[in-house]
Amino acid sequence: MNKKLKLAVCQNKVIADKDKNLLKMKKMIAKAVKQGVELIILPEMFNCPYDNHYFPIYSEEIPGGKTYEFLSKQAKEHNIYLIGGSIPETVVEDKDEKLYNTSLIFGPDGKLLDKHRKIHLFDVDLSDGVTFLESNTLSYGEKVTVVETELINIGVAICYDLRFPELMRLMVDKGAEMIIIPGAFNTVTGPAHWETLLKARAVDNQVFVVGASPARNLEADYHAYGHSMIIDPWAEKLHEAGSKEDVIIQEIDLTKLEKIREELPLLKHRRSDLYKLEEI
Amino acid sequence: MNKKLKLAVCQNKVIADKDKNLLKMKKMIAKAVKQGVELIILPEMFNCPYDNHYFPIYSEEIPGGKTYEFLSKQAKEHNIYLIGGSIPETVVEDKDEKLYNTSLIFGPDGKLLDKHRKIHLFDVDLSDGVTFLESNTLSYGEKVTVVETELINIGVAICYDLRFPELMRLMVDKGAEMIIIPGAFNTVTGPAHWETLLKARAVDNQVFVVGASPARNLEADYHAYGHSMIIDPWAEKLHEAGSKEDVIIQEIDLTKLEKIREELPLLKHRRSDLYKLEEI
Repeated sequence: MNKKLKLAVCQNKVIADKDKNLLKMKKMIAKAVKQGVELIILPEMFNCPYDNHYFPIYSEEIPGGKTYEFLSKQAKEHNIYLIGGSIPETVVEDKDEKLYNTSLIFGPDGKLLDKHRKIHLFDVDLSDGVTFLESNTLSYGEKVTVVETELINIGVAICYDLRFPELMRLMVDKGAEMIIIPGAFNTVTGPAHWETLLKARAVDNQVFVVGASPARNLEADYHAYGHSMIIDPWAEKLHEAGSKEDVIIQEIDLTKLEKIREELPLLKHRRSDLYKLEEI
Repeated sequence: MNKKLKLAVCQNKVIADKDKNLLKMKKMIAKAVKQGVELIILPEMFNCPYDNHYFPIYSEEIPGGKTYEFLSKQAKEHNIYLIGGSIPETVVEDKDEKLYNTSLIFGPDGKLLDKHRKIHLFDVDLSDGVTFLESNTLSYGEKVTVVETELINIGVAICYDLRFPELMRLMVDKGAEMIIIPGAFNTVTGPAHWETLLKARAVDNQVFVVGASPARNLEADYHAYGHSMIIDPWAEKLHEAGSKEDVIIQEIDLTKLEKIREELPLLKHRRSDLYKLEEI
């Protein structure tokens, strides 16, 4: 493990124009690369407005779609690891078409290392006005995603997945040292829970946690919270964006992780004789 | 379930004198009772300085010890549920003597409803000076503790137990609607983690969470963080003590729990087809 890692989150304002979203993202990535980052993280649905109505229209097959090619090219051109937030993915099986909320993870050679399909779908009906039923259009992912890289072992989960501590633990048991959450919390759940959840996952699992949100777009139907954040394994917030478009850049000290796991060996203190968490 | 519940946390300053600690606690309980509370919660080791050296000296057998009798009498006299923080418990089996960190849960008739023995023991060696090896003197509890009461179903876990999301989930699966954590976090882990963990357990499990700490005593070897807290199932902090001695009193609206579980049915959204958490 290298001792230092410089990473960026590109918190873009998503509009209803895929090409313009990609063009904007290209500029944001270039800005981060100028600062010498090795890992760039994009938000959930960074090129598609967050709305069931848009998902099928913006979706792409993997590999081969426009966004796939864009991300692969960006990773290779800049020699970076690129966590492609998420996009709506179309999968055609026989005559059945399914949609997933999918994160694409590229290596510095431009090759797809892995993908994560959102496992938990956000079906809520809050009394203060926010209603969203993802499962009306999206299908459920079936896999826990952890990718070994030369920088650090990265677990990826998307937005609502963050609310399930079981999934976070399973990622850690598979070796995750950093958990990346592209997530578009809204203006109700964001202020109430986003920071608490990111910090709790960090300190419970003694990992770095990065939450990558789109910027808030008040002209869109869904108002993302923003506030992309980088948290260290002691639950200290290293960096936080506001609600507007921003590229946040942070160098992290990877030795912190080993140090904390040694001093407070939480993961070893689990009572495996009393309870067991297993992937089925 | 009643719709409102008034509860108190008595955050006492623990000194090296068991009788004086009990006398002080008697006054604090009386103060809370005057406000009409139905449930009172005491801190971890509320009558014994938090130090391995003191545990065997202050420990009692259950039932029958001085503190047991005190708590039972207080509960009955005031017609309240009383979560007796924790005390060092001596268990003699054959010629073997064991110590536990044990919480006693009394009903309004003065009868012991259940007890919780701390499951996870705090063995840490932080580079900034805090070292504590509980397992040098204490033995490990073996049971997940949830008590049905007429007020609400109460799960109890002690201090370091809070750091294990698995235990919290198991309590909820056993029906807990409120999780009570008598806990003496210190001045390093307290500011860093106490609030985040209490809030995360509340919002993950959609339960009320109460953290009950001793007040800070700078004359003692171990400096407790204080900051007893009452959190609702949306992770909102309803009440927080400072670091000094205090009785905090809070009325909570129990309908919030049902409402939140209905609007954002997290617990039902767990992917039981992908992962499984089980008590062994």
